[in-house]
Amino acid sequence: VNEHAPLIGIVGGVGPYAGLDLAAKVFDQTAARRDQEHLPVALLSVPHTIADRTAYLLGEVAENPAYALAAVIRNLETLGATVVGIPCNTAHAPHIFDVLLAELARAGSRARVLHMIRETARFLAETLPGVQRVGVLSTTGTARAAVYPAVLQALGITVLAPADDMQVRVQAAIYDETYGIKAQSNPVTERARAELLAAAGHLAAQGAEAVILGCTEIPLAIPERTLQSLPASLPAVDPTLVLARALIRETYPDKLMPYLHL
Amino acid sequence: VNEHAPLIGIVGGVGPYAGLDLAAKVFDQTAARRDQEHLPVALLSVPHTIADRTAYLLGEVAENPAYALAAVIRNLETLGATVVGIPCNTAHAPHIFDVLLAELARAGSRARVLHMIRETARFLAETLPGVQRVGVLSTTGTARAAVYPAVLQALGITVLAPADDMQVRVQAAIYDETYGIKAQSNPVTERARAELLAAAGHLAAQGAEAVILGCTEIPLAIPERTLQSLPASLPAVDPTLVLARALIRETYPDKLMPYLHL
Repeated sequence: VNEHAPLIGIVGGVGPYAGLDLAAKVFDQTAARRDQEHLPVALLSVPHTIADRTAYLLGEVAENPAYALAAVIRNLETLGATVVGIPCNTAHAPHIFDVLLAELARAGSRARVLHMIRETARFLAETLPGVQRVGVLSTTGTARAAVYPAVLQALGITVLAPADDMQVRVQAAIYDETYGIKAQSNPVTERARAELLAAAGHLAAQGAEAVILGCTEIPLAIPERTLQSLPASLPAVDPTLVLARALIRETYPDKLMPYLHL
Repeated sequence: VNEHAPLIGIVGGVGPYAGLDLAAKVFDQTAARRDQEHLPVALLSVPHTIADRTAYLLGEVAENPAYALAAVIRNLETLGATVVGIPCNTAHAPHIFDVLLAELARAGSRARVLHMIRETARFLAETLPGVQRVGVLSTTGTARAAVYPAVLQALGITVLAPADDMQVRVQAAIYDETYGIKAQSNPVTERARAELLAAAGHLAAQGAEAVILGCTEIPLAIPERTLQSLPASLPAVDPTLVLARALIRETYPDKLMPYLHL
């Protein structure tokens, strides 16, 4: 759009509402009092072209969604996007993300794709530096691919995940075609929220000192940054919010609002 | 993106949150149970390139925002957008919209730009067929340019607007740099909502049988489709929702959900 004004690219559709949530958080975290002070953002949401990331990691579909994600990024680049975010934790599993980066390199892409999981680790280190045990709520694909442990264990943080029976309930809270967040996003169902809070309580009982809302659908159901309904209050880290802040930091750092622990 | 799958284009940035609101309403009004069933949407939000529409109509800025809006649409077309919506009522004033269409024709555009005001008139005729007096809450630019009367009077509908002192409060509820919606969108301030509800009550007292939320910032403050706090309950028509439904109707009509009068 204008090479002197970096354009933030957002890979939408993974899921569709998560794309909008990331864009809204970019706007929320920007110091702006009128339209013209807001940052340039392009979002392309073509979910019919992108296979489900968890289904791929579990071997249920053969096609690696990395190629479709790369095609979206190439399209965003034609509009001028220089820094890109993908609001899907599961897409950051190495079997997808590494293939995505290789495909972008092959295609001559110059876009820089921020890594939501590494950004979340950096955010944890900066804002909750004493934390040693962190719970992660995520899709079964993200959990099986050890997306968060691969990054956090290198920082000396122990990652706690729900036990198998609880993980089935977390996955259903995201994917169930009647009450799951992907089917009912606006508003989210009470059941989806209740199941996720139950899983967070289960992680707190195991000793988690913070919980990462490690699927971009989850903050749609749990918008608060501190969970109050558990035995003790627990900080909830929203990787979509973290990614939004990183996108601003890498393009227009002077416009980044202070982080508020709400 | 795929010539066999029409892409919905959204002109974002006018304002930034209104663009996201339109995209969210496209998703909300789509029959979909999983990511892949959602419609393809591209949104480009480059508000720094687009002069304020009301300021232009009031003669406060010289540059017609039509050219920047046309440039956004041309960019959306490079991604494959065939049907486009602009979630800004004021941009539909003839002095802007007619210039936009001429500029698109000159540039060889093949995109079809839906007209939010004419769509709202069609929606009123279909869903509230007996209504004869309709109030419109809008920016001062939309009001002075008679954007809604130009369309609705041809249908025999009388348009009621706030008196001048009340219009100043409506404009401030949108634009004020401390409490206005463009400065504080998420969440909107209590004051902005209260001023707009007061203006709606004022229109109801004049005999309005329905009120059009005729600035795309207003539904961010008044999400309900029936106003209960007025002397009598009053249907509130949201042109952003109407435009979202029209975008689906013109691309994937089989996916359009029934309209719910909530």
